[in-house]
Amino acid sequence: MRKLTLCSLMVLAAVGITLVNSYAQAIEDFKPSSLNQPGKEYPMVNSEGRVRAQISAPDANYVKLDIGGVKYDLIKDENGVWTGESAPQDEGFHYYQLNIDGASVPDPGSLYFYGASRWGSGVEVPAQDQDFYALKNVPHGQIREVYYYSKTNNEMRHCFIYTPAGYDTNLSKRYPVLYLQHGGGENEYGWPSQGKTGQIMDNLISEGKAKPFIIVMDNGAWTMSGPRQQRPAQGEPWPPKNWAEGFMNTLINDIIPMVDENFRTLADGKHRAMAGLSMGGMQTKAITLANPGIFSYVGIFSGGSISVEEVQNAAGFRENNKLVFVSYGSRELENRRPGFGGDPKEETEKLKESGINAYFYVSPDTAHEWQSWRRGLYQFAPLLFNN
Amino acid sequence: MRKLTLCSLMVLAAVGITLVNSYAQAIEDFKPSSLNQPGKEYPMVNSEGRVRAQISAPDANYVKLDIGGVKYDLIKDENGVWTGESAPQDEGFHYYQLNIDGASVPDPGSLYFYGASRWGSGVEVPAQDQDFYALKNVPHGQIREVYYYSKTNNEMRHCFIYTPAGYDTNLSKRYPVLYLQHGGGENEYGWPSQGKTGQIMDNLISEGKAKPFIIVMDNGAWTMSGPRQQRPAQGEPWPPKNWAEGFMNTLINDIIPMVDENFRTLADGKHRAMAGLSMGGMQTKAITLANPGIFSYVGIFSGGSISVEEVQNAAGFRENNKLVFVSYGSRELENRRPGFGGDPKEETEKLKESGINAYFYVSPDTAHEWQSWRRGLYQFAPLLFNN
Repeated sequence: MRKLTLCSLMVLAAVGITLVNSYAQAIEDFKPSSLNQPGKEYPMVNSEGRVRAQISAPDANYVKLDIGGVKYDLIKDENGVWTGESAPQDEGFHYYQLNIDGASVPDPGSLYFYGASRWGSGVEVPAQDQDFYALKNVPHGQIREVYYYSKTNNEMRHCFIYTPAGYDTNLSKRYPVLYLQHGGGENEYGWPSQGKTGQIMDNLISEGKAKPFIIVMDNGAWTMSGPRQQRPAQGEPWPPKNWAEGFMNTLINDIIPMVDENFRTLADGKHRAMAGLSMGGMQTKAITLANPGIFSYVGIFSGGSISVEEVQNAAGFRENNKLVFVSYGSRELENRRPGFGGDPKEETEKLKESGINAYFYVSPDTAHEWQSWRRGLYQFAPLLFNN
Repeated sequence: MRKLTLCSLMVLAAVGITLVNSYAQAIEDFKPSSLNQPGKEYPMVNSEGRVRAQISAPDANYVKLDIGGVKYDLIKDENGVWTGESAPQDEGFHYYQLNIDGASVPDPGSLYFYGASRWGSGVEVPAQDQDFYALKNVPHGQIREVYYYSKTNNEMRHCFIYTPAGYDTNLSKRYPVLYLQHGGGENEYGWPSQGKTGQIMDNLISEGKAKPFIIVMDNGAWTMSGPRQQRPAQGEPWPPKNWAEGFMNTLINDIIPMVDENFRTLADGKHRAMAGLSMGGMQTKAITLANPGIFSYVGIFSGGSISVEEVQNAAGFRENNKLVFVSYGSRELENRRPGFGGDPKEETEKLKESGINAYFYVSPDTAHEWQSWRRGLYQFAPLLFNN
């Protein structure tokens, strides 16, 4: 052993790393992802959270699995079928794609989700706490697809509205409303689909842990052209120059009046909440600080926090506010993303000391991804419309 | 010219065909398909209905556009971007995919639709009559995503339910119901998405051409496992052995009672219709013949027809029926698909002569595809619940 040079050790170490990253240590308990297309076996996920992809591409030169910012090589068998897996991924939902000879394409095995400014593949690493968003035989609300005309943008717009179980039978009851926003590069499909909003709320309400309320999930992009379209999606600077104000006008002047006119809402600021993730959290902060009589409950998931100074500068905010909820994935705090302002935990604690009903929640072992935001909603919803 | 041999002529002819099939005669007025992902230029469609696909795949050996049962070669440029187009396609919606070195994958430029037993790409060739399903600033209904428990299958099921404009404000009004089924290899997303059901009905109702009614779009697969899953999807014999009876039990015992309990329906056979396309049309025929008191209006789109003999053998059908509507795409009649029974026009005319309120409609210049079925719904809906 004494004859081993530093160079030899580095080579051995590199070989060891290669083995770890490919097959050597993968536990062979892979199961199809819960987000696969009907009848499709791949992608699969094992108990370590490794994602195994497979595709037939007999004439390809190479195929890669592109997930979590890393590309993993797939290996071809004698039938032209390529198979390979990623390093372990965090629990929850991940966007991913395949790369075939330089073409980035969706995996034909998965269902498709809008994120990273594209409709593309998603995979689900089963989480220990997945029961809170499991589909159960409990009373279910509905998620309604709604088209409406926006005066602000002079166009038809498109949103999803969750109405809780009983909405269609308790015809004299009126409900509070949460306006719930997606992140940058996402759209109004995010919360109802990969966000599992319907299941989270159905489960919470059926267990008596949250009050029934309406949730409006609209497109927070600053303009919109046609149904299911979001623009600008690609090549724009970030944050876009009117990321908050553009949507604010649409929200205040078009969306809220449309909802109050067409749904049995409690149409006042005391019964209105706004929350969002990432860019949607930043929009929530800007819009609720600027409109203190319109929203009383505020949720910011992975999108910054609110300082005591900002509250002091927003006339009327303190008097009207009933809740400021701030959450992050733990891996975001370890390696905090730039552009979201001060330390969120410290700011939220100071906010609480100043008399605001403030909460800070950390999602264990998750990053800037949907499992953090599902958990954020699960923690946030029970705090709404109680006071 | 006299020296040209037959062989030379065949070579020249072959060259000519190659030119026709690639670029020579394509009119250069390509525009992005209306079903593209936000910000995506390709696929494009020209005024001839040619579909031009484009994808960056610098290391690929070949890329093909696979549409309408034909694969078209794309050509690589110096930047590794492949481009090519199809022969002219019929007006309306078409499923398609790309093939990269033997891998069949969705086009990352398009939105995705469920058909051919997969979620995959769709492209829209603008139709002369596209106004009837255009998104307009008229009063809009809602398409609601509904989960419910099925005793028959002992599982949670998933459907979409269209409620017309005014449903949430005219709280004393009750509505008739149409049960509307997709085809084989499709699922409950077909009618609300590529079928344009919401827009077709909103436009018809706002113009006073159809009565407002509820439309239930469920999954007609014979069993179902989990949300958004359809099985068996691949490798099953067709038609599957319990394609009608399996769904009939679910429809009669679970879906209709769920709808009548949760929506303000006119819950009797006089106010209940069933229609479907292809396999869904065959299910409609089998189920309405077997349950004459339960449905009064029948629509069969590209799924066969009903003979006088079949009516005679279905006790109670004639007495309860108010409409039998049969439609086909003209190209289906030119080259009629096997397995749908007798000549549909002749059968329907005889049915009318026998006293049934029967209609036969032919969609011009369309095949066994969604444009035929959009037009079918557009012709069928005004005939419903008038008598």
